[in-house]
Amino acid sequence: MAHISILGTGNMGQAIAGLAAKGGHTVELLNTSHADQAVTGDIVVLAVPYPSVAAVLAERAGQLAGKVVVDITNPIDFATFDGLTVPADSSAAAEIAAAVPTARVVKAFNTNFGGTLASGSIGAETTTVLIAGDDADAKALLSGVVAAAGLKAVDAGSLKRARELEALAFLQITLAAGEKISWTGGFAVTA
Amino acid sequence: MAHISILGTGNMGQAIAGLAAKGGHTVELLNTSHADQAVTGDIVVLAVPYPSVAAVLAERAGQLAGKVVVDITNPIDFATFDGLTVPADSSAAAEIAAAVPTARVVKAFNTNFGGTLASGSIGAETTTVLIAGDDADAKALLSGVVAAAGLKAVDAGSLKRARELEALAFLQITLAAGEKISWTGGFAVTA
Repeated sequence: MAHISILGTGNMGQAIAGLAAKGGHTVELLNTSHADQAVTGDIVVLAVPYPSVAAVLAERAGQLAGKVVVDITNPIDFATFDGLTVPADSSAAAEIAAAVPTARVVKAFNTNFGGTLASGSIGAETTTVLIAGDDADAKALLSGVVAAAGLKAVDAGSLKRARELEALAFLQITLAAGEKISWTGGFAVTA
Repeated sequence: MAHISILGTGNMGQAIAGLAAKGGHTVELLNTSHADQAVTGDIVVLAVPYPSVAAVLAERAGQLAGKVVVDITNPIDFATFDGLTVPADSSAAAEIAAAVPTARVVKAFNTNFGGTLASGSIGAETTTVLIAGDDADAKALLSGVVAAAGLKAVDAGSLKRARELEALAFLQITLAAGEKISWTGGFAVTA
C-alpha cells in the first residue's frame, strides 16, 4: 500500500483522497494551515490551482526529492478563457518538473472532472485516468492506486504529452462552461 | 440539401462521403486525377494528409472563395511521433485559414477515427464531431450535415480551438499506435 500526501483540500483533492482511500491506501490531506507539517507520502499530489503551485513548491521543494509528485493542474488563463498561461511549447507539468528536478513528476487527473473520479464512471464507461511521465516506476505506482479504486489507468506517454493532456482538459472545461456537456460528462476513453 | 466536394479519396474522405450521402446530401469525391475539375460544392472537405494541403490550396485557392472549407488534418510529425509540424501557438487550421483568407475555414472530423464515422458510434456513445470555427453559419451548415447522418455535432468554439482539437487527436493517435486503445475507440464525448 502506498502512503499519499494530498496538498489541497478542494473538490479535486477530496476526490483523489476518496479514490486513494477506496483502494486501501493511507492518505494525508494538507492545506495552507499545515504549512509547518512536512509531507510524509511516497506520492504527493499537487491539488492546488496552478497559480498556487509556485508558492507550494517554494515552501516544500526540499521535501519532494525522490517522491512521485502528481501534477493535476490546468493552467487556464481565466482572464481570457482563450488559452493557457504556460508557454505554447511547454506545460504546467514541464514547468513543475523544471522547478523541482529531484522529484519524479507525473501528470494525471487533470483530464478528469471530480465527479467522475468519485463515481468511477463517465457515461457508460469506467473513468480513465491518463498518466504521462518520464519515470516508468512512478507511473506504475500511480496506476496501481487508480486501478485499486476500480478506475482505469492508461499510460499516455512521456511527460511531454502533458501538453496534449492540458489542451484536452482546457477544451473539456470550455465545453462544460459553454454547456455543451455537463460537469459529470466530457471525454470518456473507449477501448 | 448541401452539395459537398471532398478532396481526397482515402479512408477519411470515403467515410465523410458516406456520412454526407447518408444524410441525403450530394457528394463529389475528387483526387489528384481530377486536378482539372473545379470543385462545385458549397462545402469543400480537405481530406488529404496535411503535407499535401499546400499543393491542393495552391491549385484550388481561387475556387474556394466564400466556400465552407473543412480542415480535417492532423499535422503530426511522423519522423519523431513526438509533436506536430505546425508552430506550437498555431494549428493546421490557422495555417490554412491564413493561406485562403476568402474561404470560411472550419476544423472538424480530425478527432474522429474513420471507423467511428462509418459506424456512428464509439463505445456506447453516438460519435460526436467537434467543430471549431469563426463563422457561425459555416459551423451550422456542417453541423446539419453531421446531424442528418445520425451523428452528434458539437460546437467547440472559435477556430483558435483547433489547436486543442489537434492536440487531442494527436494524443488519441499516439494511444492507438501504442495499443492503449483500438482504432475504433478513443475519446467519446459524453454529455
